[in-house]
Amino acid sequence: VGQRRGLRELSADEAVIADQLTKLKDEAGSHSPSLLTLRQQLPELEIAVDACFISNPYATQLFLDHLQRELIDTGAIRDVLEFYPSQNQVIAALLAEHLGIGPEWLFVGNGAIEIIQAVIHNFATRRVLVTLPTFSSYYEFAEGRVDVVFHTLRKSDEFRLDPDEYLAKVAETDPDLVVLINPNNPDGSYLPYEDLSRIIAGLPPDVTCVVDESFIHFAFEDMNLDIRSVVGECEHRPNLVVVKSMSKDFGIAGIRAGYAVMHPERISSLLCNGFLWNSNGLAEYFFRLYCRDDFVAQYDIVRKQYILETQLFYRQLEKLSGTRVYPSMANFALVEILGDLDADEVVRHLLIRHGVYVRTCSDKIGLEGQYLRVASRGLRDNQRILDALDDVLSEA
Amino acid sequence: VGQRRGLRELSADEAVIADQLTKLKDEAGSHSPSLLTLRQQLPELEIAVDACFISNPYATQLFLDHLQRELIDTGAIRDVLEFYPSQNQVIAALLAEHLGIGPEWLFVGNGAIEIIQAVIHNFATRRVLVTLPTFSSYYEFAEGRVDVVFHTLRKSDEFRLDPDEYLAKVAETDPDLVVLINPNNPDGSYLPYEDLSRIIAGLPPDVTCVVDESFIHFAFEDMNLDIRSVVGECEHRPNLVVVKSMSKDFGIAGIRAGYAVMHPERISSLLCNGFLWNSNGLAEYFFRLYCRDDFVAQYDIVRKQYILETQLFYRQLEKLSGTRVYPSMANFALVEILGDLDADEVVRHLLIRHGVYVRTCSDKIGLEGQYLRVASRGLRDNQRILDALDDVLSEA
Repeated sequence: VGQRRGLRELSADEAVIADQLTKLKDEAGSHSPSLLTLRQQLPELEIAVDACFISNPYATQLFLDHLQRELIDTGAIRDVLEFYPSQNQVIAALLAEHLGIGPEWLFVGNGAIEIIQAVIHNFATRRVLVTLPTFSSYYEFAEGRVDVVFHTLRKSDEFRLDPDEYLAKVAETDPDLVVLINPNNPDGSYLPYEDLSRIIAGLPPDVTCVVDESFIHFAFEDMNLDIRSVVGECEHRPNLVVVKSMSKDFGIAGIRAGYAVMHPERISSLLCNGFLWNSNGLAEYFFRLYCRDDFVAQYDIVRKQYILETQLFYRQLEKLSGTRVYPSMANFALVEILGDLDADEVVRHLLIRHGVYVRTCSDKIGLEGQYLRVASRGLRDNQRILDALDDVLSEA
Repeated sequence: VGQRRGLRELSADEAVIADQLTKLKDEAGSHSPSLLTLRQQLPELEIAVDACFISNPYATQLFLDHLQRELIDTGAIRDVLEFYPSQNQVIAALLAEHLGIGPEWLFVGNGAIEIIQAVIHNFATRRVLVTLPTFSSYYEFAEGRVDVVFHTLRKSDEFRLDPDEYLAKVAETDPDLVVLINPNNPDGSYLPYEDLSRIIAGLPPDVTCVVDESFIHFAFEDMNLDIRSVVGECEHRPNLVVVKSMSKDFGIAGIRAGYAVMHPERISSLLCNGFLWNSNGLAEYFFRLYCRDDFVAQYDIVRKQYILETQLFYRQLEKLSGTRVYPSMANFALVEILGDLDADEVVRHLLIRHGVYVRTCSDKIGLEGQYLRVASRGLRDNQRILDALDDVLSEA
């Protein structure tokens, strides 16, 4: 307990909390304890900013405003919570129309995580190729069921994926399912639309290609800040499965909403034995909102505002001494802690002394060094994150 | 279109709605279209009572009062909807403590339906024995994966299950997983605790026994109206899996909350490859409420009130001419339509002419005859159901 490698000594009370945080993190495995868990287990901790959680807070507010006006003020929330939501295919049909695809191409999930589980369990039969660093569920849900092989992105390339190198890795390792997250989590690296399309086209036709576009609403290729999704490729490529969480771009992780676009035969095979009522009432309400032009127009304004603020935040992060910030097209940045500091300890200091919760990447396989994943929040919260990082790191 | 077998002729407008209802029911397969689907697809329909949905409306109100006071009035709902809920094991640990069992014995689900899917997909390897009539997912989730065999309850026995006959059926059909719903859905028949315990004890040790207690809060064996769950048997019987929906007794189907109690090895095998964040924020809030003594004390009052009103409702239903009501310890009764009437048509007439939505059982395999499943709602709504049934059936 106390001063190690340059950070100021914690008080006795703080040190007790630090030990409890370590224990909670250990229990959460390759994820981080949720805000609710922290508040429940450590009520003495004052959490001011949750920059562990990667979402657009303006979109959360937009959703909450609609919820207040349309469900709470009217009393309609009773029906949403009391009665069964619609079945999977009913919600999928609504959403498909909004996305401009046939209803038989769309699968609605209890968060993207349920879809990841379904896709890995049902479509991987032999070997999965996962790019590292990554979201751990992609290999954890496969372990013990099928082989898992890795394609490790290099720090020296700033974690950019090279399409030719990747296709060579596929040829070499012979997987039957590959996973690409774009932009990637936890580094934020972005594979431009043309490169990703080239990979999809270059894969052997019997290889299922899972593209996770959960952070695609934050990426852009021109100053219009338009979204470049590969969903449109699905029609021509039965091997393509596009997974999409709504937790990040819409800031509603507590609602559990996600969807996937894939060939109708894959969807039939999933629906014939399950996934009947996997959306809750608020998720259904959200999906119905998302299909409305008035909501989408308002959402696009806060999406673009958030992108601009996020990119500005990264410019400020880069100016902090003792860190290196990797290029990100997601709503979080991978921040390397230079020198002799331990990322887990920095996380605990930020949380205990400043109430700023960022994610350690010490549990991320394929990442050599000490890294934090820092989410962009609103302007004021981003300033608090910058001040807290500056305060903690400047001691070292 | 129009007058068939004794019901009064529908108007041209009503007949159009009747055709649309038939189409929506066909699309919903072996379930019924949800209230939300009906309202969305048929806004001209005025639904006054949803007696298709089987829940305690007083418990819904109790939950909504807490939600209003603790989450909406305080603004805390933002955190619940914005951030990730706690992981499966965190919520399971809370709930296990409340239920007085070890945390490693409890699995939390996105509604009981997710647990049914997980149990059938993971623990049935050869042959499933399902009692008929039943909740269709128990065989639908198994079809094409393992054999399904049936034990059909007889109308002449009022759908009561005979333990010795059942154990003989198990010996004869040699399943590796059996399903018992208690009280049973859709007939409401109840297997007393002693009989069910005898069956569990009498099964071969390698047979997984799934007991679905989703309606157990409405059953009673003495005037204290106490719940007699077999959860306590799990500790001594690794073959026992007890499934519990919270949608019915707490009236919160839109929240999607359920749990199961089973041997720790089974739970580990499920959690090691999935089910990470399968509870949404409101489900977590509900589970935390359910662990509070003050909430449980209030809940038990409305549970008993609802049981008393429900049993009174059944006595009144029995007095209607042209029907036969089967003994029920659930919060719904199976009502046989005597004479030459079609149950689907009765359902459409009740809905179109009286706004009363009850469930047809024409899609229930193993039920010979014309049946409705009529849920008990509040006192006033129950009277509307009685009046509507009386009006429609008295014409025949």
